[in-house]
Amino acid sequence: MVGIGPGGKEELTPLALSYLQQCTVIIGYKTYIDLVKSLIGEKKLVAYGMKEEQARALEAINLALSGERVVVISGGDAGVYGMSGVVLEALKEKNISPRKVNLTIIPGITSALKAASLLGSPLNHDFCLISLSDLLTPWEVIEKRLRHAALGDFAIALYNPQSHRRKKLRRAIEILLEYKNPATPVGIVREAGRLGEEIKLKTLAEITEEDADMRTVIIIGNSQSYFYENFIITPRGYKW
Amino acid sequence: MVGIGPGGKEELTPLALSYLQQCTVIIGYKTYIDLVKSLIGEKKLVAYGMKEEQARALEAINLALSGERVVVISGGDAGVYGMSGVVLEALKEKNISPRKVNLTIIPGITSALKAASLLGSPLNHDFCLISLSDLLTPWEVIEKRLRHAALGDFAIALYNPQSHRRKKLRRAIEILLEYKNPATPVGIVREAGRLGEEIKLKTLAEITEEDADMRTVIIIGNSQSYFYENFIITPRGYKW
Repeated sequence: MVGIGPGGKEELTPLALSYLQQCTVIIGYKTYIDLVKSLIGEKKLVAYGMKEEQARALEAINLALSGERVVVISGGDAGVYGMSGVVLEALKEKNISPRKVNLTIIPGITSALKAASLLGSPLNHDFCLISLSDLLTPWEVIEKRLRHAALGDFAIALYNPQSHRRKKLRRAIEILLEYKNPATPVGIVREAGRLGEEIKLKTLAEITEEDADMRTVIIIGNSQSYFYENFIITPRGYKW
Repeated sequence: MVGIGPGGKEELTPLALSYLQQCTVIIGYKTYIDLVKSLIGEKKLVAYGMKEEQARALEAINLALSGERVVVISGGDAGVYGMSGVVLEALKEKNISPRKVNLTIIPGITSALKAASLLGSPLNHDFCLISLSDLLTPWEVIEKRLRHAALGDFAIALYNPQSHRRKKLRRAIEILLEYKNPATPVGIVREAGRLGEEIKLKTLAEITEEDADMRTVIIIGNSQSYFYENFIITPRGYKW
């Protein structure tokens, strides 16, 4: 399982690249395969759409058992809402040892860290990552995590804030506003590190549904965060 | 500001490398400079010890204002308990525009993600990063965050769990055990991605002070996490 980072070849690690180049089959969402296609030469490619993670994890395992050197790619990090978990779940389900398929996981730069780098230093203190997708996680669990992230005064990175069908962002912001200052700095980054990258700075109270889709990461400061020009700073606690 | 990742050149992104090669001065902890020394050719190097972040941020700014192309390196990601925050704080303190020094932040793979990749998929659902260092953060704030991370049922990555002088790990685990199952899977990774890498699997109740120093990251599962052979799986919620 290989995390390809934000998408550009400049942010793919040499270790990840070596796996992409030495494998015989690459499995992954079409979007991610397209991002690395120019780097990998002739390979068997298995592209697929959303919501087919389990079938593809099982296919990856079968191909590996048949002797192929299989790379399953994830955007960002392989282990942050990525494919490494579902492949491990599938191995356990089928009672196959990870050793038998020589399982290796190669990390990549996850979108919260890429987005944060474009925003200054919003995550430079304790922070939480929360996905607002309730496809696999009950919404009550997500609400509970939002509340505790706010009560703990964590900076927060929201993944999958919204899709065409899921419209939960407004509700999530309402919950955060029960505990957090409406003036809390927020960075909204779409296509972080990819073509069409867009950055917006707002306060927590100003976020609207129009700000986000599936390719957006929203980073929300803690109680100490502030704007400085077009950056967000979450201070460490230094005395100046 | 450049994040060099876990330490090996195989996990330094090409973008980070290009900044290291094109700058005229590199500033950073000696440990990190040593890790990249072989890659950078002849440069002015400013190595320094711990607890001098502010002085070095100011020196970086002065060198940049005098026309040098300065890279400040951080291990892992530049924005996760890294140098990007203190440099931005210093710019604000001195009322200097980030534009004036052409400030750019290049992310890297932070140690939680490297450690997680070695452990399987412990962070494959919502998670928190918490540093146990109370040098700059009041211990009460850290305790509050530990409690809310546990109450929110986040997986948790603990940074700076312990040093020779700070012995807070036992107390932190006590707090987590008030809310979390003692059998919760834990991965303890020392020198993740570097020479001397060590991996231990334990339960939350089994962690002792001997398990950690400043170079250790401790990853603690959520209520759904389980061991499978020598891996930790935090499931996404798929039905099999």
